[in-house]
Amino acid sequence: MNEDQRKAPLWGGRFRKQLDPAAKVFSSSIKYDKRFAKEDIEGSIAHVTMLGECNIIPAGESTLIVSALKQIREEITAGTLQIPDDSEDVHLAIEELLIQRIGSVGGKLHTARSRNDQIALDQRLFLRKELRELQNSIKELQRDLIAKAQANRQIIIPGYTHMQRAQPVLLAHHLLAYVSMLGRDAERIADCLVRINLSPLGAAAFAGTSFPIDRDAVASQLGFSGVVFNSIDAVSDRDYVIEVAGVCSIIMMHLSRFAEELILWSTSEFGFVEMDDCISTGSSIMPQKKNPDIAELIRGRSGRVYGALMNLLTIMKGLPLAYNRDMQCDREPMFEALETTSNALAMMKLIVANITFRSDHLKTVLQEGFLTATEIADYLVRKGETFREAHRITGELTGYCAENNLSFTSLDLEKLRSYSPKFSEDVFDILDPERSIALKVSLGSSSQESVDTQLIYWKNKLSE
Amino acid sequence: MNEDQRKAPLWGGRFRKQLDPAAKVFSSSIKYDKRFAKEDIEGSIAHVTMLGECNIIPAGESTLIVSALKQIREEITAGTLQIPDDSEDVHLAIEELLIQRIGSVGGKLHTARSRNDQIALDQRLFLRKELRELQNSIKELQRDLIAKAQANRQIIIPGYTHMQRAQPVLLAHHLLAYVSMLGRDAERIADCLVRINLSPLGAAAFAGTSFPIDRDAVASQLGFSGVVFNSIDAVSDRDYVIEVAGVCSIIMMHLSRFAEELILWSTSEFGFVEMDDCISTGSSIMPQKKNPDIAELIRGRSGRVYGALMNLLTIMKGLPLAYNRDMQCDREPMFEALETTSNALAMMKLIVANITFRSDHLKTVLQEGFLTATEIADYLVRKGETFREAHRITGELTGYCAENNLSFTSLDLEKLRSYSPKFSEDVFDILDPERSIALKVSLGSSSQESVDTQLIYWKNKLSE
Amino acid sequence: MNEDQRKAPLWGGRFRKQLDPAAKVFSSSIKYDKRFAKEDIEGSIAHVTMLGECNIIPAGESTLIVSALKQIREEITAGTLQIPDDSEDVHLAIEELLIQRIGSVGGKLHTARSRNDQIALDQRLFLRKELRELQNSIKELQRDLIAKAQANRQIIIPGYTHMQRAQPVLLAHHLLAYVSMLGRDAERIADCLVRINLSPLGAAAFAGTSFPIDRDAVASQLGFSGVVFNSIDAVSDRDYVIEVAGVCSIIMMHLSRFAEELILWSTSEFGFVEMDDCISTGSSIMPQKKNPDIAELIRGRSGRVYGALMNLLTIMKGLPLAYNRDMQCDREPMFEALETTSNALAMMKLIVANITFRSDHLKTVLQEGFLTATEIADYLVRKGETFREAHRITGELTGYCAENNLSFTSLDLEKLRSYSPKFSEDVFDILDPERSIALKVSLGSSSQESVDTQLIYWKNKLSE
Amino acid sequence: MNEDQRKAPLWGGRFRKQLDPAAKVFSSSIKYDKRFAKEDIEGSIAHVTMLGECNIIPAGESTLIVSALKQIREEITAGTLQIPDDSEDVHLAIEELLIQRIGSVGGKLHTARSRNDQIALDQRLFLRKELRELQNSIKELQRDLIAKAQANRQIIIPGYTHMQRAQPVLLAHHLLAYVSMLGRDAERIADCLVRINLSPLGAAAFAGTSFPIDRDAVASQLGFSGVVFNSIDAVSDRDYVIEVAGVCSIIMMHLSRFAEELILWSTSEFGFVEMDDCISTGSSIMPQKKNPDIAELIRGRSGRVYGALMNLLTIMKGLPLAYNRDMQCDREPMFEALETTSNALAMMKLIVANITFRSDHLKTVLQEGFLTATEIADYLVRKGETFREAHRITGELTGYCAENNLSFTSLDLEKLRSYSPKFSEDVFDILDPERSIALKVSLGSSSQESVDTQLIYWKNKLSE
Repeated sequence: MNEDQRKAPLWGGRFRKQLDPAAKVFSSSIKYDKRFAKEDIEGSIAHVTMLGECNIIPAGESTLIVSALKQIREEITAGTLQIPDDSEDVHLAIEELLIQRIGSVGGKLHTARSRNDQIALDQRLFLRKELRELQNSIKELQRDLIAKAQANRQIIIPGYTHMQRAQPVLLAHHLLAYVSMLGRDAERIADCLVRINLSPLGAAAFAGTSFPIDRDAVASQLGFSGVVFNSIDAVSDRDYVIEVAGVCSIIMMHLSRFAEELILWSTSEFGFVEMDDCISTGSSIMPQKKNPDIAELIRGRSGRVYGALMNLLTIMKGLPLAYNRDMQCDREPMFEALETTSNALAMMKLIVANITFRSDHLKTVLQEGFLTATEIADYLVRKGETFREAHRITGELTGYCAENNLSFTSLDLEKLRSYSPKFSEDVFDILDPERSIALKVSLGSSSQESVDTQLIYWKNKLSE
Repeated sequence: MNEDQRKAPLWGGRFRKQLDPAAKVFSSSIKYDKRFAKEDIEGSIAHVTMLGECNIIPAGESTLIVSALKQIREEITAGTLQIPDDSEDVHLAIEELLIQRIGSVGGKLHTARSRNDQIALDQRLFLRKELRELQNSIKELQRDLIAKAQANRQIIIPGYTHMQRAQPVLLAHHLLAYVSMLGRDAERIADCLVRINLSPLGAAAFAGTSFPIDRDAVASQLGFSGVVFNSIDAVSDRDYVIEVAGVCSIIMMHLSRFAEELILWSTSEFGFVEMDDCISTGSSIMPQKKNPDIAELIRGRSGRVYGALMNLLTIMKGLPLAYNRDMQCDREPMFEALETTSNALAMMKLIVANITFRSDHLKTVLQEGFLTATEIADYLVRKGETFREAHRITGELTGYCAENNLSFTSLDLEKLRSYSPKFSEDVFDILDPERSIALKVSLGSSSQESVDTQLIYWKNKLSE
Repeated sequence: MNEDQRKAPLWGGRFRKQLDPAAKVFSSSIKYDKRFAKEDIEGSIAHVTMLGECNIIPAGESTLIVSALKQIREEITAGTLQIPDDSEDVHLAIEELLIQRIGSVGGKLHTARSRNDQIALDQRLFLRKELRELQNSIKELQRDLIAKAQANRQIIIPGYTHMQRAQPVLLAHHLLAYVSMLGRDAERIADCLVRINLSPLGAAAFAGTSFPIDRDAVASQLGFSGVVFNSIDAVSDRDYVIEVAGVCSIIMMHLSRFAEELILWSTSEFGFVEMDDCISTGSSIMPQKKNPDIAELIRGRSGRVYGALMNLLTIMKGLPLAYNRDMQCDREPMFEALETTSNALAMMKLIVANITFRSDHLKTVLQEGFLTATEIADYLVRKGETFREAHRITGELTGYCAENNLSFTSLDLEKLRSYSPKFSEDVFDILDPERSIALKVSLGSSSQESVDTQLIYWKNKLSE
Repeated sequence: MNEDQRKAPLWGGRFRKQLDPAAKVFSSSIKYDKRFAKEDIEGSIAHVTMLGECNIIPAGESTLIVSALKQIREEITAGTLQIPDDSEDVHLAIEELLIQRIGSVGGKLHTARSRNDQIALDQRLFLRKELRELQNSIKELQRDLIAKAQANRQIIIPGYTHMQRAQPVLLAHHLLAYVSMLGRDAERIADCLVRINLSPLGAAAFAGTSFPIDRDAVASQLGFSGVVFNSIDAVSDRDYVIEVAGVCSIIMMHLSRFAEELILWSTSEFGFVEMDDCISTGSSIMPQKKNPDIAELIRGRSGRVYGALMNLLTIMKGLPLAYNRDMQCDREPMFEALETTSNALAMMKLIVANITFRSDHLKTVLQEGFLTATEIADYLVRKGETFREAHRITGELTGYCAENNLSFTSLDLEKLRSYSPKFSEDVFDILDPERSIALKVSLGSSSQESVDTQLIYWKNKLSE
């Protein structure tokens, strides 16, 4: 077989002309899917092993192909072999390498298989690995957040709604809210993995095959929990890629919220947090600047993952069954969503490790504002007011203080009683943020006790 | 209490001025969230019952409030009571109705609660109900597809890749691919429901409360499987709405693909399907037209749900904790995603019930094209060719036929053998589409047997 | 004509069965497009007038139809006539009203016309009006921003990059940045209007018509600058709706940025701005809260318009020519994008009118941070340092001050000269924010003079 | 200056620690923005020339820097110099190269400039060039479509609405619809270019500068039509990138529609078009397949550009002024939108050049269906029927034919008159598709004459 023939497209029989060179570049997916090289070889080994065991090809040929594939895989891993960039895709590239080495018997590898089921297989193997890594990254970030919460468990911060100071909360409780969000993210990945961990191989082009293959054996060898049953579905489905992009979008949304808070907290105005130099950058023109660039980039990167999700949904809209070439366009958004999310998780971990909460400043902050107003209202309720009336009284009291630039603690009992006779000496107990936090008794509230329970819960959960 | 006071905002204490009327309209969510009226009342009944049981308010007052709430619910259900449109939101509207009826004791309902946890509760109750209905709609569509598959189990259609005729498949197998997709959709809803079915109530504004409430009791009374533990997370989270929009987007993507196929199949050119008048419309100008409008609208509606998903993701991007008013904007996309998806499922069911496959025409179609080319190649492989070589030979054979306007079945053995000496008399057995389908032996393939297995699997599954 | 016949679909000839009632509801667009009633009638008047003038129908009949249409329009405007909700769309609804009044001659209105070109016409007329109103809303907001800038022209605020204090700027200059953005928004609308202001009428279903119509006359009567030439394009095009959603998305993006700043500025931490009660709301649980809800809702509403854009792009993806029913789904996103943007502009105007800048607090703020560091570096450059070296020196100086909790103004010359011998007495001139601003000499900079030039430019521009 | 110092970040003065290595990789934009190298140098040359002319730096130094920059540019163009990959961004990379060559005087280049205005400049220069190339690509595709239309001007195809055969149209008219769409795309680019073609340079960090720079001179030297006036706006604005992504999204939407039609037309079922081997690919498993992959990929790629648009809108949502690092994330979607669109236009041009319309088959097709039904209805109108009645009669006639498998031309006059006495001998003239097309007289219709007018219009337009 001469070089020209070798390079002729594998569908050559019916074709008189080569694909236009520019069209070849446009349609080639090799630059993206060569990342699947190991998965592709792993799948091919399982497939050809089964072909041998089922006597679809002679056992000797199967052994020969397997051993050549393993050799190729080893060389790729060692970096001594590069996937050629001029192939149409990774499947052909590896098959070509195989045939170069062992001759035309290598062509038997593709018996009872199509690139349609092969790419689905590669993607599922790849995503399974990537999602497990993502689960680990999430766990690591959760662990660091928990450690940070634990180490700073005495620190109280103002809690906000509408970005207005609302009630004091433990910093640890606030950080544990993110641990909870990440916990749901990990659950979603686990759900996703159940649907991903099925083998499409054996669907062939889409209709199955007349060769007596053993799909379960291949699935089992590859560690899948089963097969994608319907053969048309097996090659037409890209739900699993969209689901991954959806899961990643929510993770990025969570990280964008945390990034936003960290950026706010490190402003001169809030000043809750000091970012280490190693996660900050300066300005080429303003010498005093120390900017939270890494957090900003995490926030901005949410766009990339949202975009990837929209990309994938658009690709699949209105596509008839079974396989259409449009589906190849799923590669870039899939990689981008995973890579961006994985990097963002790692960077958030780096930030968490390199921030210091300014506890002295936070103590001052807690004296300002009217963070204990809710406690005053609740106090009045306990003294017999309806909640609505207690709310009105406290509101007027706050208005009076705000206009006269006073804090609650600067008022005396007489003044308080001019607003409601229900106030008595014990009201002063609740005006302190620490006391206010200690008062919280509800399950999952911002009390020290609740935070301890959460810390224990998560430590157990993460050590599973 | 005079009218003015009643209409003063419930946060009146600190405020000197009313909200600007246009701003009130802009910020009011009542037109959307009055759909939550029943959920809101259900939640309030559980909450106030617990307040009584925990002695946070006197048992008698709790009973009084519960009974008034039940009365209000009854009147709303009966249609004799309308939620007033001039309230800020459904929570206030109902509280106002309550106070009108039983006086200021009604104000005690809001003890140890905030609208922040209340809206999360209403949404979760609402979504739980809606998602269960969506699961039913999916099941119904699956059942009808299965019935259609069963009723037409002899029909063979050309299967397509790249919209080019590829291999013959059983229509039933093709329809079962959609049943499989819908099966995954139902699984995703089930996953989603696990995370939705938790009670946020008791998180209050976001920090929990100093009242000794029993969150688990409320959760249990409302049929939840547990509580959202961290109180900040409980009010800041909208993952559950985004997840629903994500799940609905994939459903709509599936339906858009099926709609596209039905539109194609009912063209003059394909002619596989006849749509009944009851799902078709005509033209105001072209008297001969019979258009598949319902299918087109299903396809087009995918945009609405994709848009809702993007809407929600955008809203939540970069929002600091805990509650921000932006989160109110989740209402419209949530309703739109659910309603659109639910309608689309119902309409697809209507279409499935009202299409007839043109079996005679399909028989003719199967003789055209070269649908059995893969069988020829596989035949040669069985005779000892490598797959690559068998592919090349069949490709050349197809090229010859295409250029000379011949079909495979019109060739004689001599001609075939001029392409490969491996052809012998038994090749003619495989050139028939029915025979080709019967040859498929792999699990989940398009053989009659595989289709029967799938039908049994799904019938069992759906009768669970 | 009996009632049944009247209600038969207008494509009745070929049909034996009515559309399924649920499908009718699903496919009906009347609830959305009845907003086009006036545009539809206006278009019909122009069309039928032309039919008469071109002798396609007798002049007397044309006059009769015109006069009946005017009567219907008048009654709709007066509110004495409602568009019936049970029609398929607004075009049929009006035609049915017409035939009810003047009998079957009313049926001549639809000569040489199709609903395909009619809906495109209605939308273009509607959008032309709406976009002009949007231009006005933008101008009004620009005017108010300019007035606010003018009224507060002495106020200096810290300018930020990366949300870190960077350099002092005039508040007016900052507000004028938004005026500039809105200026581009208005330009984009103007560009859009050029493409919208063309008449599609006369394209009929998509191929034109055999009646000797005068498209230019109709276009001219309706105030269009020309016609959409190619008849297939005229009915298949929805670019104009997508463009509008694109333009609105950018407007909302701008408003979301301003909203974010206003929310930040009204935090306790920034404290730059006081929002009036009339644009604030309180909390049902925390009596001290005063929340910038209107600004938050503007920010959150950006999602709705982004979602509408994605909706429209999805609908049109991959649709073959000419008209497909999917295109009807453009109605909701079009209305939502326009309405949301229009409301957001009005609300931002309300906010601008109801905020007070806290000038005393701002003066204090300007003394903090190291806002004049860039001036120090530039000072050193003027004294002969390279910029890079000057930057390094100032950076070290800032580091020293930050660590020792000092401000630049607290340093003496000796200390300064220990960092660079190039410092001399005149350095103290530039350490004052006001002086720093006065130093800015570049075109469009934050100097008082530049701001004055901008104010004049915009006042002239807006009075055009 | 030793190596370590050279590699210290340019904001070094205040910083004690280097950026974490992983954070450096995460935040580096060099891999994307090194594509701006030429624009960056071009901008620097203009800037430093002005600095010299305005005596901000000595003329000799300015000349020295300019000449070194030109040398660097030359080497980059020649490929003998690579932008180092380890810089933070392209601006620093080039400045570092400069300082390596001419020593610390190179540091003067950055006087009165910031990377904030510099990146905006680079992007605007880059986009200006890219958009002009996109305009050319559009023109080229338009020209090829026109040539194809001209060359096939006798061919009639069935026109479709709802994918149902509707009326015959000239293929040329259909192709000219796409020429019109592309014409609007070119207009949108031109509109966009007006806003892009302004210089942001001189805004410095965002507040302008105290150096007496001449912004107009720089703008003029760089071929801009003016400056972005407000300095804060100049660095905070990314409208121009979003606009480009918006324009590209609509282009891709148009191409996806055409791709869809080409895919349909090349099915066995439609068979209107034959794609050359050079734009088709085969199957690895089905030897008979010839797939329209290039068209499919164009269709699928629409997702990538939609995603890029959503990415950009998300990034900018809610960002406070002025510059935030999030804005760096605009690079990838910008490049992806442009590259994808540019490739898709080129590929569509390749397809247009390599398709052959199957005119014989099309002639057969036109005899099927009831494409002239509208002409029959119009005929009856001309004979005095109302349009509604004529429509009904023709509909019944079509129903009769459809049920009895007849075509209009097979009916005799007697049969026709049994439906309406208004039919007479001349009706047979209009039943022929060619005659039907000739009858179209309205402006922009599908008549030969109208097509000729359009061809002339576009040829003139494109030769401007």
